[in-house]
Amino acid sequence: MDAARYPLEPTPDELEAQTRAVADFVLAQLRGLADQPSFDLDGVEPLRAAFDEGLPEGGTPLAELLERLKPAIAKSYNTAGPGYLAYIPGGGVYAAALADLIACAVNRYVGVAQAAPALARIEETAASWLCRLMGLPPGARGILTSGGSLSSFSGIVTARHERLGEAFQDGVLYFSEETHYCVTKAARLAGFPRASLRALPTDARFRLRPEALRNAILEDRARGKRPFLVVANVGTTNTGAIDPLPDLLEVAREHGLWVHADAAYGGFFRLAPGGETRLRGIEECDSITLDPHKGLFLPYGLGALLVKDGDALARVHREGASYVQDVTHAGSLGFADLSPELSRDFRGLRLWLPLMLHGTSAFRDQLEEKLALARWAFDELRSDERFELLDEPQLSVVAFRLRAPADEAERLGPELLRRVNARKRVFLSSTRVQGRYALRICVLSFRTHADRVKDAVSALRQEARALVGRTPSRESSTRRRRT
Amino acid sequence: MDAARYPLEPTPDELEAQTRAVADFVLAQLRGLADQPSFDLDGVEPLRAAFDEGLPEGGTPLAELLERLKPAIAKSYNTAGPGYLAYIPGGGVYAAALADLIACAVNRYVGVAQAAPALARIEETAASWLCRLMGLPPGARGILTSGGSLSSFSGIVTARHERLGEAFQDGVLYFSEETHYCVTKAARLAGFPRASLRALPTDARFRLRPEALRNAILEDRARGKRPFLVVANVGTTNTGAIDPLPDLLEVAREHGLWVHADAAYGGFFRLAPGGETRLRGIEECDSITLDPHKGLFLPYGLGALLVKDGDALARVHREGASYVQDVTHAGSLGFADLSPELSRDFRGLRLWLPLMLHGTSAFRDQLEEKLALARWAFDELRSDERFELLDEPQLSVVAFRLRAPADEAERLGPELLRRVNARKRVFLSSTRVQGRYALRICVLSFRTHADRVKDAVSALRQEARALVGRTPSRESSTRRRRT
Repeated sequence: MDAARYPLEPTPDELEAQTRAVADFVLAQLRGLADQPSFDLDGVEPLRAAFDEGLPEGGTPLAELLERLKPAIAKSYNTAGPGYLAYIPGGGVYAAALADLIACAVNRYVGVAQAAPALARIEETAASWLCRLMGLPPGARGILTSGGSLSSFSGIVTARHERLGEAFQDGVLYFSEETHYCVTKAARLAGFPRASLRALPTDARFRLRPEALRNAILEDRARGKRPFLVVANVGTTNTGAIDPLPDLLEVAREHGLWVHADAAYGGFFRLAPGGETRLRGIEECDSITLDPHKGLFLPYGLGALLVKDGDALARVHREGASYVQDVTHAGSLGFADLSPELSRDFRGLRLWLPLMLHGTSAFRDQLEEKLALARWAFDELRSDERFELLDEPQLSVVAFRLRAPADEAERLGPELLRRVNARKRVFLSSTRVQGRYALRICVLSFRTHADRVKDAVSALRQEARALVGRTPSRESSTRRRRT
Repeated sequence: MDAARYPLEPTPDELEAQTRAVADFVLAQLRGLADQPSFDLDGVEPLRAAFDEGLPEGGTPLAELLERLKPAIAKSYNTAGPGYLAYIPGGGVYAAALADLIACAVNRYVGVAQAAPALARIEETAASWLCRLMGLPPGARGILTSGGSLSSFSGIVTARHERLGEAFQDGVLYFSEETHYCVTKAARLAGFPRASLRALPTDARFRLRPEALRNAILEDRARGKRPFLVVANVGTTNTGAIDPLPDLLEVAREHGLWVHADAAYGGFFRLAPGGETRLRGIEECDSITLDPHKGLFLPYGLGALLVKDGDALARVHREGASYVQDVTHAGSLGFADLSPELSRDFRGLRLWLPLMLHGTSAFRDQLEEKLALARWAFDELRSDERFELLDEPQLSVVAFRLRAPADEAERLGPELLRRVNARKRVFLSSTRVQGRYALRICVLSFRTHADRVKDAVSALRQEARALVGRTPSRESSTRRRRT
């Protein structure tokens, strides 16, 4: 290869040709989404191995690189497609991708307002919309992160700083057994030993029991510990459970605890009809994790942390240095003052552009549809005696088990998942709830509509029948019989 | 606005039209870069205020939104342009922007290898290239972050976990007075009180003095503390100083300290001719922060942490949960196991694509040019008796002062900066070194070539002459006289 052919600043003609090539590539990807398999890993190993190569001295034509990327993208879980019902989907609204192209190409810096005042304001505005959507009062502030894990981390660090100060070794934090493991991970990164983390039991609907929280706090206080934080779930990953926020807030207020809502998955359902009732109490939480790449269907790479007393973010994050004296002013707080990051991408645009382009109503309609689809799948599966439903959907997750003799269930559950996924129309994932294997349908891609959910349900019913026969075993089918 | 007109899934024709509109917008931005002012904040206030608006219920045509973005981008520090010599530039190689468009549009998940094996391998490969460029041994691993601040944070947390365990309150960390404030910030977020942070004095060239480190360690040990980490600079922000890595490594090894190199700015100069000598010792550091958005000229939003014993990343970051049982296997370590993040963007592509497209040599040539330009600017300014140069460039920063009577210097320095920047051909920033005001030229945009650096130097000389006259004051011009 001739290195000189590929300088970092291509000619205007080359820039245009590159842009056209990538645009065609991307549009072809989008056009094919509905027809692509929901997952496809056949023959991926040699593809993967081919990327295990040294750093090249010379350049390579863009067309060649795009050709290599095509199969690398195809051989994967199709997380962008309509059949993706595993984990927590999102889909990836395309306007966010266009926003990222703009943000990267113009490469402005928004960490301090002074360097790009109007762009920084776009990000502030987008963050303030999230505060308003959650019903937080004036004075709340939001920061945008790369995802829920770092949002939770910053929420925990902020709570630590506000409630415990620098000597936090006797601090204790609480959450339910159903809480996402990013909370445990974030707490450990924030310096808390495992012994300071209390995973508390849940009720029959997988919600943290307020009296369990109260008892644990009292017990820890009696032992000379400092309870300081409860993390409440607004939509668990396993079943979509929403912890009883008003009751938890009451217990927390009694004992001076910070309440952080992990609403990464569930928070945006506040937009849907009835959402304010469904998520009652979220507007009073001290901090909230949201994942726009989940409930706003954006591409991976955008989380948010909202803090009711927004200045608390500055109290823990703000530092200064001489070499930024030209851009830091007493009165202005930039994202570098409010978050752990300094230089980073202008990620506000990938939130602002989709919301401005499509309007809130487009997102609200989608969320409403997702709730209805999950409800429909629940009703269908419940009507089939082969399935045991773990809970009525609190949001858009349906968790269930195949009814089978106890000694068979741990084998037949994974086999059912394998068979349904092997059809490649939908892609489901599994979990364990209360120690037992369970399957999940999570409806949260904007590309998922009734036809795919019907495919999921009918594949489950057909494969279940093939596995356990026309009549499920007596042992596990005593609870409910319908036809 | 008619909400129904803007569903989240546009028609194929609309997708194509949107892509074309954004492509035209972006290409126009790039075409104009060389002619745009180096900064322009005139009239930005009403623009900024206009973005302070509520969340819209309905959508807005893309063309209108792009029209609003145009001036919002223009009224800023032109961080993408050739005249940007402030702070630490980068420029923003366009191929990375194209990579982000692809990554966001196809929205695959690379946090666990299983979900997109070939794409995850692309990111692993790109990270391994960084390890190789720094000369790290096999067994080293890299993670990609959003920037240097989070890289430093993860480096500190990894060192904390490896050297101190969960009870780290008696741990002490060391760095020079010239160290970037992201290190202090990261250490505090990681749970260290300010009293555990030691900012040590530097030598005449602003490098951490190894004997100062040794003495501080001994003193802390005598007080029952646990010294565990030294952060060494590979290119300070103020002057580009490189701490004496081999000597610091020796002291650190004597006392069992982890050595973290903050090479966010300077690390990639190892590619340039003589780089291995210049950065000698970096290949033996326990961890390294790199910012590809600096030394590889990529857009904001890409940092890296490299760890010599790569498995250390897993020991601190790995957590598990039932709902990821389908994708986590004992043998495989995904980025979610190695970093604080779980869901996040496929940011490996924005490193892989530019390096593959342009080849290493294009970056090497650029880095060599930047070193030469800084050296040239240094020689020119040194030949003018109105300037006091703080140090010969160790990398591509030139730091200097206007020679002026002591009572005038603090007024004339900022005035010189203001006048040079007001010409809008180049944009410089200031700092304080050893308590006194100083100006900086940092040459690190791939779009900056000799013409702009000449403009910077001639503007400085003309404005300096206008401010202090033909002959500088006797008081501050005693050290060096040349013409």
